[in-house]
Amino acid sequence: MVPDIAVVDLLGLLAYGELTAFERLATDARMAPTLVDKIALASMAAAEFAHFETVRAHLLRIGVDPEEAMGPFVSPLTNFHNLTAPADWLESLVKVYVGDNIVADFYREIASVLAPDACALVLDVLADTGHAAFAVERVRAAIQANPTVAGRLALWARRLMGEALTQAQRVAVDRDALTGLLAGIGDLQALAEMFERITRAHTARMDSLGLSA
Amino acid sequence: MVPDIAVVDLLGLLAYGELTAFERLATDARMAPTLVDKIALASMAAAEFAHFETVRAHLLRIGVDPEEAMGPFVSPLTNFHNLTAPADWLESLVKVYVGDNIVADFYREIASVLAPDACALVLDVLADTGHAAFAVERVRAAIQANPTVAGRLALWARRLMGEALTQAQRVAVDRDALTGLLAGIGDLQALAEMFERITRAHTARMDSLGLSA
Repeated sequence: MVPDIAVVDLLGLLAYGELTAFERLATDARMAPTLVDKIALASMAAAEFAHFETVRAHLLRIGVDPEEAMGPFVSPLTNFHNLTAPADWLESLVKVYVGDNIVADFYREIASVLAPDACALVLDVLADTGHAAFAVERVRAAIQANPTVAGRLALWARRLMGEALTQAQRVAVDRDALTGLLAGIGDLQALAEMFERITRAHTARMDSLGLSA
Repeated sequence: MVPDIAVVDLLGLLAYGELTAFERLATDARMAPTLVDKIALASMAAAEFAHFETVRAHLLRIGVDPEEAMGPFVSPLTNFHNLTAPADWLESLVKVYVGDNIVADFYREIASVLAPDACALVLDVLADTGHAAFAVERVRAAIQANPTVAGRLALWARRLMGEALTQAQRVAVDRDALTGLLAGIGDLQALAEMFERITRAHTARMDSLGLSA
């Protein structure tokens, strides 16, 4: 059986997303203010790499070349990360927490239209790697110590969303099959509800950081 | 039993060495010319992090705070890496191969004077993570394609050695207990033979890369 091109696209995007998340977390670990923070971030990076290997192994198992599957997403994901290189440790934490979670929410919605094995794989590699509690605790403490950083970080989060949407639109235009998966979610009403759910969860996360969405 | 300060120093140095090796490999992965190269380097980085976690767990088991044990080595290792940031992909491969192996040779010599459990731990985390074959193959191919890079890379390897020795001397002056481990190797004659063995192995590795030592 030839694997569905939309599923291959989704898994290729997911795999390259995990690989770049690994690189980014490992690079950001260099900005960590303490050894404990550095180890926490490095440990999340290693967890992302394990997720990458899980998706890669799945692609090989269904007879797909992982590098080929990832190919179409190298440029949009590289652009996104180049345009949103954090200037400091707090920006990197906000990017990890806000960015990864909104992407994860989106994958979880899409996973519901996949075959059971692909769905289970996606949900498995999206398991929280400890980003959440760690980032929330550190960002809240920083805002408490110096409330003026809240404004800057809120702006930063909005810029992240803007750049992410720009790249997502590029991918949507280039990869018809992938966009086609959205049709599986339902009609326009169902899609609107999905985006509403994702936005609500994002706002709740910004709240938990102490930032206005 | 209070752990020997020299052993704690050695394991602290080893742990922080693995953590910075992880960071460096993950960062260098961004310079990889192909996705296959990027995955290879990221996978070595993840292996280094697993080694770091092994040493960290051992330190906790013997009742030592890992962050405290690593503390004295943060500055010399950070200096070393800041002073030897690779300018391109080939420099990063030479650094991985030449640098990591000479350090590993040195640890292996020292391991022989440790108690059996510490010795086994050191030998275990120094297990080759695939750096060797990968780096040799890539560097040789690059020199074959353009023989003029050999001179530049040979100079680069000599600079790496110089900076490593400078930082090692700083550590030796600051950490008497650690330097004391060398006495366990034997008299001056035995030490000279150890450095001779390490140098010979280094020259053989430079040869295998196609570089003059």
